[in-house]
Amino acid sequence: MQRKIYLNMHSREEAQQLFWSRFSNHCPGEETIPSHLACGRVTAGPVHARFSSPSFHSAAMDGLAVRAEDTFGASDDAPLTLRIDAGEAVMINTGYPLPADKNAVIMIENVLLDEDGATGVIRAPVYPWQHVRKVGEDIVATELLFPTGHQLRPADLGALLTGGCAAVRVRKRPKVAIIPTGSELVRLEDCPDAPPAGKTVESNATVLAGLARQAGAEVEITPIISDDFASITRHVQAMVASDADLVIVNAGSSAGSADYTVRIIEQLGETLVHGVTIMPGKPTILGVIDNKPVVGLPGYPVSAIIAMEQLVLPLLARMQGVYMPPPTAIRAVLAKDLPSRAGIEEFRRMIVGRIGVDFVAVPLKQGAGAITTLTRANAILRIDASSEGEIHGREVDIDLLAPLPQVERTMLCTGSHDLCLDVLGDFLRQQDPAYPLASTHVGSLGGIMALKQGMCHIAGSHLLDPTDGSYNTSYVRKHLADRDIRIVTLVHRAQGFIVPKGNPKGIASIRDLTTDGVRFINRQAGSGTRVLLDFELSRNDLDPDAISGYDQDEYTHMAVAVAVLSGKVDVGLGIKSAAKALGLDFVPLIEERYDLLIPGAVFETEMMQTVLRVIATPLFQQTVEAMGGYSTRETGQLVQLD
Amino acid sequence: MQRKIYLNMHSREEAQQLFWSRFSNHCPGEETIPSHLACGRVTAGPVHARFSSPSFHSAAMDGLAVRAEDTFGASDDAPLTLRIDAGEAVMINTGYPLPADKNAVIMIENVLLDEDGATGVIRAPVYPWQHVRKVGEDIVATELLFPTGHQLRPADLGALLTGGCAAVRVRKRPKVAIIPTGSELVRLEDCPDAPPAGKTVESNATVLAGLARQAGAEVEITPIISDDFASITRHVQAMVASDADLVIVNAGSSAGSADYTVRIIEQLGETLVHGVTIMPGKPTILGVIDNKPVVGLPGYPVSAIIAMEQLVLPLLARMQGVYMPPPTAIRAVLAKDLPSRAGIEEFRRMIVGRIGVDFVAVPLKQGAGAITTLTRANAILRIDASSEGEIHGREVDIDLLAPLPQVERTMLCTGSHDLCLDVLGDFLRQQDPAYPLASTHVGSLGGIMALKQGMCHIAGSHLLDPTDGSYNTSYVRKHLADRDIRIVTLVHRAQGFIVPKGNPKGIASIRDLTTDGVRFINRQAGSGTRVLLDFELSRNDLDPDAISGYDQDEYTHMAVAVAVLSGKVDVGLGIKSAAKALGLDFVPLIEERYDLLIPGAVFETEMMQTVLRVIATPLFQQTVEAMGGYSTRETGQLVQLD
Repeated sequence: MQRKIYLNMHSREEAQQLFWSRFSNHCPGEETIPSHLACGRVTAGPVHARFSSPSFHSAAMDGLAVRAEDTFGASDDAPLTLRIDAGEAVMINTGYPLPADKNAVIMIENVLLDEDGATGVIRAPVYPWQHVRKVGEDIVATELLFPTGHQLRPADLGALLTGGCAAVRVRKRPKVAIIPTGSELVRLEDCPDAPPAGKTVESNATVLAGLARQAGAEVEITPIISDDFASITRHVQAMVASDADLVIVNAGSSAGSADYTVRIIEQLGETLVHGVTIMPGKPTILGVIDNKPVVGLPGYPVSAIIAMEQLVLPLLARMQGVYMPPPTAIRAVLAKDLPSRAGIEEFRRMIVGRIGVDFVAVPLKQGAGAITTLTRANAILRIDASSEGEIHGREVDIDLLAPLPQVERTMLCTGSHDLCLDVLGDFLRQQDPAYPLASTHVGSLGGIMALKQGMCHIAGSHLLDPTDGSYNTSYVRKHLADRDIRIVTLVHRAQGFIVPKGNPKGIASIRDLTTDGVRFINRQAGSGTRVLLDFELSRNDLDPDAISGYDQDEYTHMAVAVAVLSGKVDVGLGIKSAAKALGLDFVPLIEERYDLLIPGAVFETEMMQTVLRVIATPLFQQTVEAMGGYSTRETGQLVQLD
Repeated sequence: MQRKIYLNMHSREEAQQLFWSRFSNHCPGEETIPSHLACGRVTAGPVHARFSSPSFHSAAMDGLAVRAEDTFGASDDAPLTLRIDAGEAVMINTGYPLPADKNAVIMIENVLLDEDGATGVIRAPVYPWQHVRKVGEDIVATELLFPTGHQLRPADLGALLTGGCAAVRVRKRPKVAIIPTGSELVRLEDCPDAPPAGKTVESNATVLAGLARQAGAEVEITPIISDDFASITRHVQAMVASDADLVIVNAGSSAGSADYTVRIIEQLGETLVHGVTIMPGKPTILGVIDNKPVVGLPGYPVSAIIAMEQLVLPLLARMQGVYMPPPTAIRAVLAKDLPSRAGIEEFRRMIVGRIGVDFVAVPLKQGAGAITTLTRANAILRIDASSEGEIHGREVDIDLLAPLPQVERTMLCTGSHDLCLDVLGDFLRQQDPAYPLASTHVGSLGGIMALKQGMCHIAGSHLLDPTDGSYNTSYVRKHLADRDIRIVTLVHRAQGFIVPKGNPKGIASIRDLTTDGVRFINRQAGSGTRVLLDFELSRNDLDPDAISGYDQDEYTHMAVAVAVLSGKVDVGLGIKSAAKALGLDFVPLIEERYDLLIPGAVFETEMMQTVLRVIATPLFQQTVEAMGGYSTRETGQLVQLD
């Protein structure tokens, strides 16, 4: 182990400049392919038409082909009879070639035919070339169909074929080689169960390959290489010597004792950059071996993806000479303070939705190790290196990860978490793929604060008022007195003790939490479960200080259940479904009501009416009850506030 | 031949409703596939994690693993020594499992190690679980990873693998069968040269297949079927009986004598819609045979594409339960009047660019037969059926076909056309794929009017002032007196007579145009070439009425050359490069100057400076001169206006 020292640290812009300029003309070459297979490919040079289209004068309408000069003088007063039987006019269908001696078409609707079709009477003349599709009207042979660097779309293939180009010269797809390294990595195929302590399922290579393919590259992934200097060196050498246009080593890109990548690149070639002042993604290496770009990406999944997107994908676009549009950016109101270290450019994953006229952006947690912070996000906030962060309520520029119309329809759900919200989200998506339900968990009181600040569409809440045993209403009256809030019951649910299978410590009542040797895990202050615990402690005259672990907390029922499952603690307070999900035992304590709190203006929207329709369906209620610990006897009912 | 009668005509909305509701639950089924191959696929049900991740408590930093309780009390005043040799603290790398008896990690940067690493001194305590990645911090086993109907992105594959899902249940891709029909159709492979009169290269099937694949479908294209009722019937029956989820017949969807599709669908099943009040795309059939959707699409390429996009692709999205975002819409100022027939919803192809703060939308021509109106467009204007059109200068909503940032960088070039503009466009794209050059041709005077109205970035012009032999300057002074306009010379070029190979009519001077039996094709009024012709006629005391074809005009040099090539006329006036491109002969008349007229504010932009840099390069000038008839001796020079 050693202190981490990056010898060659740069800002993102500097790193991009240093790296990309080195390979700016690094086109992977050209190839000629059949046009009908060229969708998505990029033209390697200007493409000119070989044929004109149409290649002959043809009728643009069904009707009579005539010489326009023969129709001059026809009028209502002086109808003109055209001799079809004598060839003065010829019946013609749309698209058929115009006879050589004709130069116009009279629409069939404007002709009075006699019974045997020998003559036709017209009451207006046509001008020369009327209703005729002329040679070259669409495409003139030799004309430029597409300039260099044009990415071909389906309609473009039609223009290629119509213009006589059966094949087209395109840029070759760049080839990317990915070398996953790490003695801790195992393949999922080799893990019938969760990987043992110290082992991690290799997943970055698949993700990086997907991103590279989306950017138009072909990808080869080597087997996992364990942390052995010589072995990684050999594989890097082999991939650099192959036909790969870019080599990625993942991970070992940091500066620790087992981080070999930088030393290998130094030994085989040159390190342009080691360390980029971005977070996540700092331990990134940009190097060159035998004039090929070699990249060391960090091991944490979010770090690897951000570094790939910021530094590698734009280079793949440049190699193909294709324009890579920046993400769509919108202005959004920040729902929380986001302090950030000056000197580091930070990429924070966000959930954005529209509330009234404003977009609201809720940050997800920060950890670069949590891939779900990226899969759940629909936007990224980039905090400049010169900034010390952003303040809650401020308008910030946000880059979208999803189409704007979908972001506009994203439902922001916060407050207390319940597994029924996941079921609701799933039912909503089945109903209409346009309504994503995005939940973040801040506890019941946190949800009420979010409502106060206009930062959510829905807040889940189960706040017990000890004075009268009511749920939520007194809190809404107290904290949201000036707001129009509707309360809709989602479920009744059992709260109780989550304990290991077999309940080894024999937890049976609240008193057992104070037993010596019983390690407890708490929920955070402001959560309904914490309110419930404190109420039960006070009702039973128990001292919180007598509980080992009272001051350690988790933010969700599932996190509490995981703490029990992992043996970190002996007991936690939570909902039955969380215990059931992880195969733990459950000792019921009380049944409580879990409501959805909804601003009046949101309540009336089509989006929320869809939610209310869904929770009223028998199928939703059956699904919820099947999870265990739930009753839907009042599900969907409006709770009176007064 | 018969009058066209659509028995079952509907508006787009009605047609969509009738068709889609019939197949709303027409999911093509489900399949389980390996997660690493699932990019772009759509989940068929909720996906839950099988493993937690991390699956063990691990170090989140390099440092010393300790029991937090052992560090309490450490401070600057009271440094604490931890015995590494006695196991009180353990060296640990990021990602390694935390020893069972430890619950926190001290960052290595905060430890003063002795030389042999036997002890470490700390000056601050850590709290329990500090710098520890706890079990389930990212993913808790059983948690919902993705709801039903989620289209998987690369990062999502990472979450699947990390959550232990080696395989995932997804919707099957819908299968689309495309039957190209038409006795006039030939395969491009069978056409070494342009297809003979009456024949057309089949291209729609490739385009429709590309669109269907982009929408997630698998596609089978049958061989071309000629217009034979029995034969088409057999193929429709076979495809309906196959595993196709949707069958497309293209074309024969109209109501003419050779349009069999509607009769075949009527005979085998049911026609829901025949005729949709959209343009292009009216002759569309939406039917059902054996409970499968069967679509008849029109033969004109733009009609087929618009009908496919409006009626079929959204159904393919619904079959997969995936959200299909609408195109990005912007407001743009319309550059021309666009009259439209009431009762028909019109889809006009547009070129949009940004001039100053406004977007400007220039309509392309209307013909549904011209695929290039779609490949050259970057936007579509939808004119409502209730509207009689839009007025020039009005702000309209436009749907983008290209990313907004690329539309913002599109250079609108109008006025007179010259082939050098295509070369310029190609060189610009090689320089920077972000600058598309989009030209429309309205003649030199038309370009000056566009400048007057602020509707273009560049206008090409070659307007001769007969009074002094100057080019462009007097016109700019007259028409654009109040504007700041810069004039940059692009080329000098030869204008002359474009005649068939061998010059069979022996055209040698302007007088020969009046010879009996010489058919001429003119350019439109307002074009520089027309001004030149009229000047030469008047200088030689020739009467325009003595020229056969003086009153028939074309809008481009290439269209004039095509008229000569096709034998429609014997001679036209145009530039040498157009004659050379089509292998025609050229009789020079004069050399003229062709300039770019540029508004002052546009002249200073980075975009236009890039243009000026490009035309100053020797490579650009060599390429232009190689086309024949051009001199670049003053290319890039600013022309003085005073």
